[in-house]
Amino acid sequence: MTTARTLSLEALSARVEEIFVNVGLTADQAGAMARVIVAGERDGAKSHGIHRLEGCLTTLRAGKVSASAVPKLQEDESAIVRVTARGGFACAAFELGLPHLVEGVRQFGLAALVINDAAHFSALWYEVEALAEQGLAALAMCPSYSTVAPAGGSAPLLGTNPIAFGWPREDGPPYVFDFATSMAARGEIELHRRSGKPLPEGWAVDADGRPTTDPDAALAGAMLPFGGHKGSALSTMIELMAGALIGDRSSGDALDAIGTTSLIPTHGELVLAFDPAQFAAGRGTDPFGQAETLFEAIVGQGARLPSQRRYAARERTMAHGVTLTAAEMDQLDRYQALGLDGVSQRRTDVSSEREA
Amino acid sequence: MTTARTLSLEALSARVEEIFVNVGLTADQAGAMARVIVAGERDGAKSHGIHRLEGCLTTLRAGKVSASAVPKLQEDESAIVRVTARGGFACAAFELGLPHLVEGVRQFGLAALVINDAAHFSALWYEVEALAEQGLAALAMCPSYSTVAPAGGSAPLLGTNPIAFGWPREDGPPYVFDFATSMAARGEIELHRRSGKPLPEGWAVDADGRPTTDPDAALAGAMLPFGGHKGSALSTMIELMAGALIGDRSSGDALDAIGTTSLIPTHGELVLAFDPAQFAAGRGTDPFGQAETLFEAIVGQGARLPSQRRYAARERTMAHGVTLTAAEMDQLDRYQALGLDGVSQRRTDVSSEREA
Repeated sequence: MTTARTLSLEALSARVEEIFVNVGLTADQAGAMARVIVAGERDGAKSHGIHRLEGCLTTLRAGKVSASAVPKLQEDESAIVRVTARGGFACAAFELGLPHLVEGVRQFGLAALVINDAAHFSALWYEVEALAEQGLAALAMCPSYSTVAPAGGSAPLLGTNPIAFGWPREDGPPYVFDFATSMAARGEIELHRRSGKPLPEGWAVDADGRPTTDPDAALAGAMLPFGGHKGSALSTMIELMAGALIGDRSSGDALDAIGTTSLIPTHGELVLAFDPAQFAAGRGTDPFGQAETLFEAIVGQGARLPSQRRYAARERTMAHGVTLTAAEMDQLDRYQALGLDGVSQRRTDVSSEREA
Repeated sequence: MTTARTLSLEALSARVEEIFVNVGLTADQAGAMARVIVAGERDGAKSHGIHRLEGCLTTLRAGKVSASAVPKLQEDESAIVRVTARGGFACAAFELGLPHLVEGVRQFGLAALVINDAAHFSALWYEVEALAEQGLAALAMCPSYSTVAPAGGSAPLLGTNPIAFGWPREDGPPYVFDFATSMAARGEIELHRRSGKPLPEGWAVDADGRPTTDPDAALAGAMLPFGGHKGSALSTMIELMAGALIGDRSSGDALDAIGTTSLIPTHGELVLAFDPAQFAAGRGTDPFGQAETLFEAIVGQGARLPSQRRYAARERTMAHGVTLTAAEMDQLDRYQALGLDGVSQRRTDVSSEREA
């Protein structure tokens, strides 16, 4: 019987990578997936950690993502870098595009990375952090599955549509936020249902568009955007910017194409990056110093910066490794031994879980 | 005694322009200001209509904005267009930069307009609409004055920091939202104080950071961002992107420099624009048709698109003109006859009023 174990990040990475290679992912794809998943465990962001393995493997087994896809880069004279994931996972597509996006920003001051046709497994914070490490500000967004009603509506239309932003800091990890534009993740509503607890007010409406705290009525109805009509407008913007603009699926299209929210959706993503050195050029100011003054004023009045919990977890795991429960170790063993056949078919809703 | 009157948009425009010329604005500046103010009246968006004249004139009288400033364009090989308003109002700076921004987007697929050192009188919806008219998606944001505490904090730090987005539509005015990232405008709290009404929950905290519904306690404390920590994070992003990034003031710097929220603040603004034709190129999709499908699904379930009330008012005033009350006509007469001396010195908080 397996027991709880503490693994180094390297050891965990090797195990996760092997699991993906065993089910047919290319080395590039498997490595990119492992880097995101291990970063999730490293940061205590369990929703993007090994918990996601089952969703990835189930989606592969269902034939809704290509294991062997080789992402393709397209560049032209513009400031738009496009990577088509060709039906594979988004992680390798992002890694392929990243250096070209950085190059574009150096050249133009700002640039965009468009990822198309990607099974969107990734944490957006992971991506904006990678850009912040290059001294760049970054904004990333993508649709998901239609599970959220627009403010004033009653039917699932928008996705939980995450948006993430990163700003570089010299003496530590960047300022990063990454949140769903829905009040809650679908998984949280499912958790309330299982434990028989009513939902907090404002999370959802029933099928007639009436506010409800009943999880069953909410699952039959729709989730709500955060922040009323303002959050609803932002979520709509994400459908437009990371869907229509880049010639890729809306959250509705993604649900139509995959047919269930229990598998990872295939759609697009938009990442914008900005070079503070060029934007502030000639102004005689220090953009990074100015940002630090703001951060100090936030923390100085007792408010928190986003991602602080992740960064605290990161410090711990970088020093001591990641501790996995006996159940998690069992899961790794099972996936590693059995490849795709080891993946259960039970429903796991992974589409809408994000760090709040 | 003056009575209520209905003016054509042209007649109103001529009167507003004359008022600004009388107080020393250049023809370009006066024309740009009149276009924004008349658009506000045209759209029934009174907070950006002639109601703003007093704030503009008071700020001129206080010497906190330059009447004669000629905005200056700076361009280089990058996708960043910079216009320095040189301490004048933002409107003429935006008009100067607009065609260059459009040219930049055509060349690079996306581009940025940075406005620096501008007394920020404008409606952001006006600006993103101007870009949508060129077939471009646009995102605009700016800081304001420190009046909002970050989520979890107790002291004014962030501004009401508006963000606006526009998306072109073929058969009518664009999809546009423009909202403050605070729960309410400072002027709304003032209105509750005057009428002795308690504030709705969640609008503000007192000086100790405790939630309050007492307008006096709120004015001594701080307003709150919309949407809790998510809105707070967005507002922080606006401080960074339209402040530190572009080498211009934060909301705190703006308040320090001007010394009161009753005058128009001088700071920067960031406008980003995107060409759907280039972003979707080669994808075989119709970005505008895809967007229409989304809009139809929103409206089809009984939800509203933002700006619909403005567009309905626009239809009315384009056909019938703008009706001003006797008091408003009096005000126009007074400003027109007396120039700067006709401006009262009574406090008018114009910094934080926006269309919700």
